[in-house]
Amino acid sequence: MSLTSEEKSIILNSIRDIPDFPKPGILFKDITTLLGNPQAFDTLMNHLEKRYEGYELDYVAGIDARGFIFGSILADRLGIGFVPVRKQGKLPYTTVAEKYSLEYGFDEVEIHIDAFGEEKGAKVLLIDDLIATGGTAKAAANLIDKVGAHCVEACFIMELAFLNGREGFNSEVYSVLQID
Amino acid sequence: MSLTSEEKSIILNSIRDIPDFPKPGILFKDITTLLGNPQAFDTLMNHLEKRYEGYELDYVAGIDARGFIFGSILADRLGIGFVPVRKQGKLPYTTVAEKYSLEYGFDEVEIHIDAFGEEKGAKVLLIDDLIATGGTAKAAANLIDKVGAHCVEACFIMELAFLNGREGFNSEVYSVLQID
Repeated sequence: MSLTSEEKSIILNSIRDIPDFPKPGILFKDITTLLGNPQAFDTLMNHLEKRYEGYELDYVAGIDARGFIFGSILADRLGIGFVPVRKQGKLPYTTVAEKYSLEYGFDEVEIHIDAFGEEKGAKVLLIDDLIATGGTAKAAANLIDKVGAHCVEACFIMELAFLNGREGFNSEVYSVLQID
Repeated sequence: MSLTSEEKSIILNSIRDIPDFPKPGILFKDITTLLGNPQAFDTLMNHLEKRYEGYELDYVAGIDARGFIFGSILADRLGIGFVPVRKQGKLPYTTVAEKYSLEYGFDEVEIHIDAFGEEKGAKVLLIDDLIATGGTAKAAANLIDKVGAHCVEACFIMELAFLNGREGFNSEVYSVLQID
């Protein structure tokens, strides 16, 4: 179920490198060129759909905002619900929040307390475009468990493997592309 | 191509009213309960897919952040590219920006200057979850035209019709549900 080397290069070649964004010294991976390329985008989504169709998932949860794009398409293809994990103050109903550390200070993500319905133990896939140190995603995975569901796996399109962000998850971790 | 009354009530009943969010006196339409309900969500997306499959669109553009959800699924179903319209400072490459008025002051949306490829005249559908006064969406539609593409229609899941937000668009305007 891994990508063929041809599929991998179709996807990789559609991602644009932007030097010094959002600040000097950072090489930003711009996925808008992937989103605008239907062949590359479909190759990626077919891969994710095939990977997860056997997982018997109940929901896909996506992280605000680029995780919404990959997460909602995957939920639609699998015929299951989509749940947004958002920055503080964006969700209108009762939320549960989790703080995580930034380089300087803290940030916070939230999820609706009833996001996964009334039954406990829903099987949830968490998705975002990129994992760096993984602070946001680990907080999001914890939130899923906190409200009574189960984060089965955290999935990322790209992983900055040298930052070891996959350490410290309670769930499995999967990335489509590893970037050195 | 309109919704049947049964489809309409499936979608409407899946949207939750939240009083006094984000401030007192506002009745917020919470679409997270729609996203988490695969039957209602699929009913809505089938309707949009049927409406737009004859339009020969080249791209769907979605407004940050809830427009990303509906827009990316629709682009996937139609087999075309997805373009994000974002708040100021979020897009990494060269952008074109447009200001719009808020109740007090201004805000700004941006699009990548090459979002719709090198050829001019791409046919674009703009999508967001809700139109109130329409300031953000009109700015987004103008941006699409500014970078050399053509905003064919602006599409919203819900329209607060009493605010007359649909006035002043250069494109057609379509809403799935009208709320009085």
